[in-house]
Amino acid sequence: MPALSSDAIGDLPVLWLRDNCPCAQCRDPRTGQKLFQIDALPDGLRVATVAAAERAGEPAVEVVWAPDGHCSAYPSAWLEANRPGGPGHRDRRTEAGKELWTARDLAGRLPEADWEAYLGEPAVRARMLESVLRVGFMVLRGVPEREGQVLAVAETFGYVRETNYGKLFDVRVEPDPNNLAFTSAAIAPHTDNPYRDPVPTLQLLHCLVNEADGGDSGLVDGFGAAALLRREDPEAFEVLTRTPVPFVFRDAGTELRADRPLIGTDPLGHVREVRFNNRSSGTLRLPADALESFYAAYRTFAKLLLRPELRLDLRLAPGDCLVFDNTRLLHARTAFAQDGERHLQGCYADLDGLASALAVLRRADTLEPLAELFAGAGTTEYLGEPVSMAQHMLQAGARAEAAGAPPHLVAAALLHDVGHVEDDVVTGRELMAGTDNRHSHTGAGMLSRWFGPEVTEPVRLHVAAKRYLCAVEPGYHDRLSEASKYTLAVQGGVMTPAQAAEFAALPGAADAVAVRRWDDEAKDPDAVTPPFEHFLPMLTALLRG
Amino acid sequence: MPALSSDAIGDLPVLWLRDNCPCAQCRDPRTGQKLFQIDALPDGLRVATVAAAERAGEPAVEVVWAPDGHCSAYPSAWLEANRPGGPGHRDRRTEAGKELWTARDLAGRLPEADWEAYLGEPAVRARMLESVLRVGFMVLRGVPEREGQVLAVAETFGYVRETNYGKLFDVRVEPDPNNLAFTSAAIAPHTDNPYRDPVPTLQLLHCLVNEADGGDSGLVDGFGAAALLRREDPEAFEVLTRTPVPFVFRDAGTELRADRPLIGTDPLGHVREVRFNNRSSGTLRLPADALESFYAAYRTFAKLLLRPELRLDLRLAPGDCLVFDNTRLLHARTAFAQDGERHLQGCYADLDGLASALAVLRRADTLEPLAELFAGAGTTEYLGEPVSMAQHMLQAGARAEAAGAPPHLVAAALLHDVGHVEDDVVTGRELMAGTDNRHSHTGAGMLSRWFGPEVTEPVRLHVAAKRYLCAVEPGYHDRLSEASKYTLAVQGGVMTPAQAAEFAALPGAADAVAVRRWDDEAKDPDAVTPPFEHFLPMLTALLRG
Repeated sequence: MPALSSDAIGDLPVLWLRDNCPCAQCRDPRTGQKLFQIDALPDGLRVATVAAAERAGEPAVEVVWAPDGHCSAYPSAWLEANRPGGPGHRDRRTEAGKELWTARDLAGRLPEADWEAYLGEPAVRARMLESVLRVGFMVLRGVPEREGQVLAVAETFGYVRETNYGKLFDVRVEPDPNNLAFTSAAIAPHTDNPYRDPVPTLQLLHCLVNEADGGDSGLVDGFGAAALLRREDPEAFEVLTRTPVPFVFRDAGTELRADRPLIGTDPLGHVREVRFNNRSSGTLRLPADALESFYAAYRTFAKLLLRPELRLDLRLAPGDCLVFDNTRLLHARTAFAQDGERHLQGCYADLDGLASALAVLRRADTLEPLAELFAGAGTTEYLGEPVSMAQHMLQAGARAEAAGAPPHLVAAALLHDVGHVEDDVVTGRELMAGTDNRHSHTGAGMLSRWFGPEVTEPVRLHVAAKRYLCAVEPGYHDRLSEASKYTLAVQGGVMTPAQAAEFAALPGAADAVAVRRWDDEAKDPDAVTPPFEHFLPMLTALLRG
Repeated sequence: MPALSSDAIGDLPVLWLRDNCPCAQCRDPRTGQKLFQIDALPDGLRVATVAAAERAGEPAVEVVWAPDGHCSAYPSAWLEANRPGGPGHRDRRTEAGKELWTARDLAGRLPEADWEAYLGEPAVRARMLESVLRVGFMVLRGVPEREGQVLAVAETFGYVRETNYGKLFDVRVEPDPNNLAFTSAAIAPHTDNPYRDPVPTLQLLHCLVNEADGGDSGLVDGFGAAALLRREDPEAFEVLTRTPVPFVFRDAGTELRADRPLIGTDPLGHVREVRFNNRSSGTLRLPADALESFYAAYRTFAKLLLRPELRLDLRLAPGDCLVFDNTRLLHARTAFAQDGERHLQGCYADLDGLASALAVLRRADTLEPLAELFAGAGTTEYLGEPVSMAQHMLQAGARAEAAGAPPHLVAAALLHDVGHVEDDVVTGRELMAGTDNRHSHTGAGMLSRWFGPEVTEPVRLHVAAKRYLCAVEPGYHDRLSEASKYTLAVQGGVMTPAQAAEFAALPGAADAVAVRRWDDEAKDPDAVTPPFEHFLPMLTALLRG
């Protein structure tokens, strides 16, 4: 292995580099969790040698550490992507991760979708969940007008947060209300549950009946409003970020209190949370001059929040479900006449679960090139066999699945021949013309973009496994298809006993042999297989961290 | 009403004072919620006149406002208690509201209780919940070793927070673990779920089996450790409070990420949250010099957290349930031999619900003087009647309850004669000796410490109601007991028609008459009544905010 000048790792901070060692001793290969404590690294840690290396067919840099002799191999692509620099981490819960808006900005592009499409089409669901993170809300239409349905909406992206109002709450006029929400009064823009800590970060409101005159909803982007305040009156902004305000709620069975600023910022000063609810603010106790400054700033912000251009008006119709970020958006409603019925059901949930659901949905997007291969170049022909390449691979995957193989082997079987297509060109034709296209190696390299060695290595070795089985298993060669017998010669022929012994000693040999057998069986022109999409959830679960 | 110099309100900030107006127009008397927006107050708000006044028998200051003419009456006691000044609100979730500890500090005073006592005795439950808020944890012993029981523990003080690990999770060795927790490895002090935002603020661990060699638990006060770091290495402390660290978790169905500092502070710089979990920390991206500073500080804090004097060791035995503040305490476990079974069940919940449960429990404490009256001075005699005063009042309360009266009237009936006892002296004897002790007024005054006018006014008027009923209801006087007929004269005799008309016009007259009738009936020496404690939940629910 060629020695490298230490330039390859430049002046990378030593503890940072070691903390990111990807070896199986430092990081659990299954969970990605770190297996050592930062304090357990030796004092005086330093780089002893640096060398060029290869990992899973990709260039890497190997570092040997002093004084403990530990060896770390960093993929060069990882070093490039994570090179120190830049402004640090963007906390996507702050304004830095949002699209701030005024009502006009959303004209004609309300983030809305039909419930059935949201449920049935991952792309629609991803677009909607992304809207909640980016603009702070989504509106689902045509949600069945059933009591309790709002909980089912929450369960599409996370977990319901139960509160003193129950798992769900009814918003309608009540005879003995414990909250103004349960009257017909107008309610100015506010965030909910400011007296809870942690505050519920998402709110859902599902409209069952809205026959009342009035009772329209309004939304204000609290992050946008806070940013506006910072521009127009920086001192008021500062006061509101640093004054904890007591928020209180009390009834027969509940007594909640949280002391939090109206505008919460992260350590870098970005707006991260708005709490605004006049109904629940308690008595502030501060020196008189601090009270004067606070109240002036509070009033300025309250007036700003009422500017009509900031307020997006929408009227919830039966079947509409509004989902919004309760740490960012303020919601309001107009008063309504009590002679028309109005009934919403609401519940709370949390942003972290929603962001996770979106991230998992997006994993499938990253597999789009594979889906295209199955739908495009893979459908044309399969090199002398009576099935297309896509049919062949789907059969192999389905056979592995039917055999109860673990997911990584189902994936390897499903994807073992992707190396026959490069940039939409079926290089497998070269193989049939007598030149080995080394498709097992090409395929393993392609797949390493998405999967770890548990998937790529059986793919890399599936051709070697044919050469091996011909050497060690009587009758195996005779059962091969004519095309397979032909390519065997191009690919190096039957292994010698020494080669076979060497192959059998490889850690991935057994897996490769298993994949090879599904490969050999997967040439039935009459077989019916599930489509590629059937395997997507399993494949996304195998994606590298 | 005498005019006061504006000195009575000194230089109180005008908007603050008005924002705290207690009138029914400004604040919902049932919920205590504010009914106006701060921006809706007129510009140029100022105090026009100040006058001495009385509210519910207590001295007050009446303010008439310009330019809108609104009138606010502030109880003098409220003005005194809330006078501006001092350091502002103590956010009790920060170190400012905690007792920081090292292991030695808790020697011999572990916050622990027996499950049955915790369930059955409100004082034990209050002491335990208070421990979680103050020192960060409690240990319940003898919790039934049933699967799922940990959820029942959480429900004694709040709501379970469901996560990707489920409503509850099993901590035992698993064949294919998605987390190191589910192996037999040692785990260094850490907080859970750092990749969640909001992070679950409470964790419960209930031991079902612990026959393993090893597998002991350890707790470290993260707030104490952070405070120690601030003293020993202020620069490292600063770096850790202002560097967002990516925490990540990923498995087949989950992809969570939170960018938060290891030490979170409130706007005033108090430690509010510790996140420390080497297993889940992702790759930091910062300029190289910032990475150097961060890693040096990170390592310093990690080493500090391992100091033996900070770590409280405890071994969970079957039936033990540990409940701890996951924003403050780090927990750890030693490795264990796989041949002995170890099985814990855990779940998450939140601090706000626990603090609410404690506050509601404490309301009952505030009623202790009334409980003492019923158990002490009230049991001796009742002024010429064949029952004790306590029996008499319990009968009145029970009759009101049986009649389906609303809670405030049950309370008024139950407490209508408390004014006969002052500082353990039965002043009622003066009444029998011919001097009116004005017990209805004294009683209303005493009760105003706890209850609003809906309870105190019927008490104040219950003697007047007798004089009234004698005037307007034929036969009423004849049905009175001899003692009641005697005291009628001392108390002013039968009302004149003019007095009766005046009484009937009072807003509380009907309630007072109702209380009076239960009073008159409640002199049965053979009646069996529930004890005072029966009424406690209802009374605590009526307590003033």
